[in-house]
Amino acid sequence: MKRIKQGAIKMEVYEALHKRHSVREYDSSKAIPDELIRKLLEAACEAPSAGNLQPWRFWVVRDGRIKKELAEAAGRQNFVYEAPVVIVVCADLSVSLRGYGRRGVDLYAIQDTAAAIENLLLAVCAEGLGACWVGAFNEDKVSESLSLESAIRPLAIIPIGYPLVERSKPSRRSIDKITKFV
Amino acid sequence: MKRIKQGAIKMEVYEALHKRHSVREYDSSKAIPDELIRKLLEAACEAPSAGNLQPWRFWVVRDGRIKKELAEAAGRQNFVYEAPVVIVVCADLSVSLRGYGRRGVDLYAIQDTAAAIENLLLAVCAEGLGACWVGAFNEDKVSESLSLESAIRPLAIIPIGYPLVERSKPSRRSIDKITKFV
Repeated sequence: MKRIKQGAIKMEVYEALHKRHSVREYDSSKAIPDELIRKLLEAACEAPSAGNLQPWRFWVVRDGRIKKELAEAAGRQNFVYEAPVVIVVCADLSVSLRGYGRRGVDLYAIQDTAAAIENLLLAVCAEGLGACWVGAFNEDKVSESLSLESAIRPLAIIPIGYPLVERSKPSRRSIDKITKFV
Repeated sequence: MKRIKQGAIKMEVYEALHKRHSVREYDSSKAIPDELIRKLLEAACEAPSAGNLQPWRFWVVRDGRIKKELAEAAGRQNFVYEAPVVIVVCADLSVSLRGYGRRGVDLYAIQDTAAAIENLLLAVCAEGLGACWVGAFNEDKVSESLSLESAIRPLAIIPIGYPLVERSKPSRRSIDKITKFV
């Protein structure tokens, strides 16, 4: 399987892991072509999933009215509206339910999509783009805005754009404080 | 923040995203030093988390008896026992509850740790190691085996080792089938 074109070297993996941080201010003068969005989504789909069920589903939103509704569903986080592209990452819960019952719905569907989102964010970083993982939103409102079927659960709103400014990344706890060797 | 040593280039990020796949057979003759484990965990901790609460906690298991108990808790998936190192990734639910209530416990704690796990797996790949995300296990048994406090929820068992054989990665659905542009 060689769907991701290797092309020129973009970024070393530890550099991407280190550099990735939330970006909430976007350069509105720079567009993001669909082809690049597809490359990001292919990176997302390289994530592992329970039983390789791949429950992730993506809504790529450029429509201004829908972006506004998403921003409002997220408690008026206006940067969601300001991003040129917003990807709403959903899980098809019927897939996880069929495969693994309640644990599939309540755990694996969330883990699988989260792993895909992290891949997406690392690809975003490698491309010189910026994004922010928005998790606080009214799921019903998002479902209504996107006319989602009942089995499709929206799990994250990811606005994407070229960063307008450089920001630093918040610090992390020391490994020693959160790890036990046994 | 520059905690991850850059050093020699390990792997391009798209290559890591593409190459990462589940590894269940490990070369028992090759040890993994604690220093490398710490580097992997630092990569994990570069993940985003809701409110930067970093609810992830890690148990690094080398003890044979505990590894055996983990393998049994996972329905006798013996490769868990055979790996030289097993990392049990947990969430401190008290952190997520305090920050975000039920949504914190039922969603963000799971997403945050899953993003950290994906980072870990990509670093594993870049280091020429192999790992497998084991999600199917009896949480009570794992908690008992590791003497976890009640607020600590085990969310994944990650056996890690040098791959014994080359395996291919299962294919992915086409982006067109799982994406809507609106």
